Amino acid sequence: MKKITLIYSGGSDSYTLLNYALSKDFNVDCLTFTYGQKHNKEIDFASSACKELNVKHSIIDIGDNSEIVFGNSSLTSVESKIPHGSYKEETMQSTIVPNRNMIFISYATAYSISNNIQEVWYGAHAGDHFIYPDCRPEFLNAMNVAAGLCDSAKIKIEAPFISYTKGEIIKIGLDLNLDYSKAWTCYEGKQNPCGKCGSCVERAEAFSDNNAIDPLI
Amino acid sequence: MKKITLIYSGGSDSYTLLNYALSKDFNVDCLTFTYGQKHNKEIDFASSACKELNVKHSIIDIGDNSEIVFGNSSLTSVESKIPHGSYKEETMQSTIVPNRNMIFISYATAYSISNNIQEVWYGAHAGDHFIYPDCRPEFLNAMNVAAGLCDSAKIKIEAPFISYTKGEIIKIGLDLNLDYSKAWTCYEGKQNPCGKCGSCVERAEAFSDNNAIDPLI
Repeated sequence: MKKITLIYSGGSDSYTLLNYALSKDFNVDCLTFTYGQKHNKEIDFASSACKELNVKHSIIDIGDNSEIVFGNSSLTSVESKIPHGSYKEETMQSTIVPNRNMIFISYATAYSISNNIQEVWYGAHAGDHFIYPDCRPEFLNAMNVAAGLCDSAKIKIEAPFISYTKGEIIKIGLDLNLDYSKAWTCYEGKQNPCGKCGSCVERAEAFSDNNAIDPLI
Repeated sequence: MKKITLIYSGGSDSYTLLNYALSKDFNVDCLTFTYGQKHNKEIDFASSACKELNVKHSIIDIGDNSEIVFGNSSLTSVESKIPHGSYKEETMQSTIVPNRNMIFISYATAYSISNNIQEVWYGAHAGDHFIYPDCRPEFLNAMNVAAGLCDSAKIKIEAPFISYTKGEIIKIGLDLNLDYSKAWTCYEGKQNPCGKCGSCVERAEAFSDNNAIDPLI
């Protein structure tokens, strides 16, 4: 049985990716990172889902170095407000956490080496390409080369949804009968999704594309 | 003036690299990582040197996830003893901290993006190639491609000493009149260097190559 390490934020993309991997009978270890993000709501959702799915889940606390390492990203800095609107807008630039994916992938690669796992999966998708360079295919390819050279164990990095829209990802999940009330997407950590941040707007479009109702709304 | 981010362990290679960069009039920000290593002696040496050189120094505490992420590396696991001998021996494999350089480089890249710095330097050298895959030129090249793609800021990764032996690095430092009592190399964190670990053995050879005396011995 293929073993993979899956970077699991607790959001709808990685929730779908996790269930997709389990549907292929892969043996999945999930990693969730705490790095100084403004709220832990996604992490709680990640923990609950892994428990329910009986999947090994490690929460890796890499400390809160956000001010010095990530500058004034609106996902980590209290001084920077999370913008409203779609990812296509200039204001969304503040939601970039500089080089976050390389940091997560590097840890997941180390974990894979230490645990005899050959592949790292993460949930980048086509909707991310416009704004987030570290979700683009060329970045994935470069990380694949680096991960194949960093150790005698040649780890592969995969992002199976990298060419899919968010709507196509939700379709995969709906076909798997997933309950999306178990995935938190909103950049805010309030009781209910704000409905206005880029992440909420994109999730709403994805459900709408599938003529489906988001159970969290 | 060129600004660089330098990954500074406090050991003799990065101590030489830091002084080499300063001798070229580069503006240097140093990053030192605490990641669950067995002792903090190198970090204290790094702090002292940066203070004396009036260089901006940030200690990035990325938490102690060593057990889960780094397995039983002898540099982090209390259950694994630091081996004695030269790097050419099989027993030295236990001193590998899986994917440590990619983790450090990914943070240093994030820091560079957040602080408008264009280059990351780290102290890999030719003596590391045999045992540490993440000190080889092909790994450096792959990380350079990835760092150039992870963000709209295209960060470069440099390891100016990657083709130099440790003896050649010490020669550069001696030519710069460096005081190597200010660089800690030993894998153990005792009062004096153990003289027996791979790192001590290699440092002794490097001084010997230059007919020089190590001030720490």
